[in-house]
Amino acid sequence: MKIAVDAMGGDNAPQVVVEGIEKARDEWSDLEFVLYGDEEQIKKYLKDSKNITIVHTDEEILGTDEPVKAIRSKKNSSMVRAAKSVKDGETDALFSLGNTGALLAAGIFIVGRIKQVDRPALMPTLPVTNSPLGVNILDVGANAEAKATYLQQWAVMGSIYATDVKQIKEPRVALLNNGTEEDKGDTLHKEAFDLLKNTEEINFIGNVESGDLLAGVADVIVTDGFTGNAALKATEGTATILLKELKKALMDNGIFTKLGAAIVAPSLKGIKDMFDTSRAGGAVLLGLKSPVIKAHGAANVETIFYTVKQIYDMLLNDTVNKANTYFEKMNKEK
Amino acid sequence: MKIAVDAMGGDNAPQVVVEGIEKARDEWSDLEFVLYGDEEQIKKYLKDSKNITIVHTDEEILGTDEPVKAIRSKKNSSMVRAAKSVKDGETDALFSLGNTGALLAAGIFIVGRIKQVDRPALMPTLPVTNSPLGVNILDVGANAEAKATYLQQWAVMGSIYATDVKQIKEPRVALLNNGTEEDKGDTLHKEAFDLLKNTEEINFIGNVESGDLLAGVADVIVTDGFTGNAALKATEGTATILLKELKKALMDNGIFTKLGAAIVAPSLKGIKDMFDTSRAGGAVLLGLKSPVIKAHGAANVETIFYTVKQIYDMLLNDTVNKANTYFEKMNKEK
Repeated sequence: MKIAVDAMGGDNAPQVVVEGIEKARDEWSDLEFVLYGDEEQIKKYLKDSKNITIVHTDEEILGTDEPVKAIRSKKNSSMVRAAKSVKDGETDALFSLGNTGALLAAGIFIVGRIKQVDRPALMPTLPVTNSPLGVNILDVGANAEAKATYLQQWAVMGSIYATDVKQIKEPRVALLNNGTEEDKGDTLHKEAFDLLKNTEEINFIGNVESGDLLAGVADVIVTDGFTGNAALKATEGTATILLKELKKALMDNGIFTKLGAAIVAPSLKGIKDMFDTSRAGGAVLLGLKSPVIKAHGAANVETIFYTVKQIYDMLLNDTVNKANTYFEKMNKEK
Repeated sequence: MKIAVDAMGGDNAPQVVVEGIEKARDEWSDLEFVLYGDEEQIKKYLKDSKNITIVHTDEEILGTDEPVKAIRSKKNSSMVRAAKSVKDGETDALFSLGNTGALLAAGIFIVGRIKQVDRPALMPTLPVTNSPLGVNILDVGANAEAKATYLQQWAVMGSIYATDVKQIKEPRVALLNNGTEEDKGDTLHKEAFDLLKNTEEINFIGNVESGDLLAGVADVIVTDGFTGNAALKATEGTATILLKELKKALMDNGIFTKLGAAIVAPSLKGIKDMFDTSRAGGAVLLGLKSPVIKAHGAANVETIFYTVKQIYDMLLNDTVNKANTYFEKMNKEK
């Protein structure tokens, strides 16, 4: 199994990427990696080239680039070249820490989507209070518009993913809605509810509200990309602001408070740990012919290591093709 | 000016309602109150009946009641009777701590909406990190479906409210969207952006993302009720979970941590204070012929006092009719 890695994406590329990939390579001997990026820079950090090939590229897609335009004009960028190698069958999966929009575009236009899936969806893992497995939520913004049938497809793919990669038996799939009762929502979400209720292969448990995103009430939460984006950003924004205010309160209130802060610091680490989803890997772009995974631009060696594990699990379980097979069967039955 | 008060709504009714109203009565001598509810219970807590009348009612709308059905069947409930008195011109505004959905229904079906407003919107005040005035966001769930023209109407009403009640000159009005760039969003939000950009009477500053809800980047944030509901609940849910985990971390980690917690407690109070919006009053149902305000079911005397101030400001400024006049003018110009 061979993973194409965009070595130039993210805040600390390529150093952190190279270190993370080497760590993963040392753990799983049947994985090979192709690193796309500036050869000289990559070599500076690469200690051992076992199972690692470098393909030199001299362009880079920046965080500020307009996604689709960047994919079309920067043909020799590390991201486009890595995506191309997946499309051409040279590698089996695409991994990047770079521009999310550009990776979505590269996934859709270069890697290509599964025929039976109308729209790929972006699926991160959020932390929950009662389990280290977290919750998967999709779509969080790959699509601004949605149809109920998209949500049904996403539910199936999310459920297969949770079974394969997180090893959850009959994952609880819920619909993000504006109330928990069955008749809640706008037209789209009412239609989606009915479809999900009648999708035999998933364990649909009904509606959840976004106030319960982190409460561990479901394993997979399905939502349209516009609402999912709003709920995800509100969650992240609130957590960021609260933790910042907490730090300020502990640090900017004199020496006595600082002393107290030092005492409680080890206990507070638990909260930070709860919000640390690095072991869950990156956000998956589901609905494509091969695994395409985006890790956070600020990801560390640990996150990169676990993202490789995540890709490895998807490849071992043939997760992507399972969805394909399911949809083909579903379409035949229609 | 006379305010109709549903004295039986909320967790600690009627005691906390009576105490809050008495406090407000002592502050503003030109306000009169009509308390709808169980006379015997209200009298138990009422110290001084100056400017306060009691109208006995023997039904109650519960938090679990189905809103529209409750409004139609419980004709002698404190909420319905209070709403009826506003409709009949006996009182000038409606104030309740009860079932939000039922109050929406009472507002729309009994008090009645402004002719020029297609759909009333629910508008709470959220805290922000850089100002005690907070931010007003609407609609957060009075409507599951929305049109761009609704969002335009809400923007105008929110802006008038921020000017009148919060005394902000040219309040910054923003659109909640899935990105800050002008071309972001689904069809609805792109249309809304164009309408808002061309609404002269408001100070439209463009898109905001839900990650910045609490960042103080706008005074009024307009959103469709479905997204607004998701963003609001995600914000509240995350804050609740984080503060709970914080408390647990400080209290459940042995005597040494507890000691540290005691030291830092005064500094942490600042965070709690930041999230305390009781001075902003309750959530306003904008678009009705008279002010209809919902305070949180768990509201305390302080919040009730400030909600009366909020209603008082709306009445003094004739906020509701200003919107009406504006829309009439706008329609004529078309």
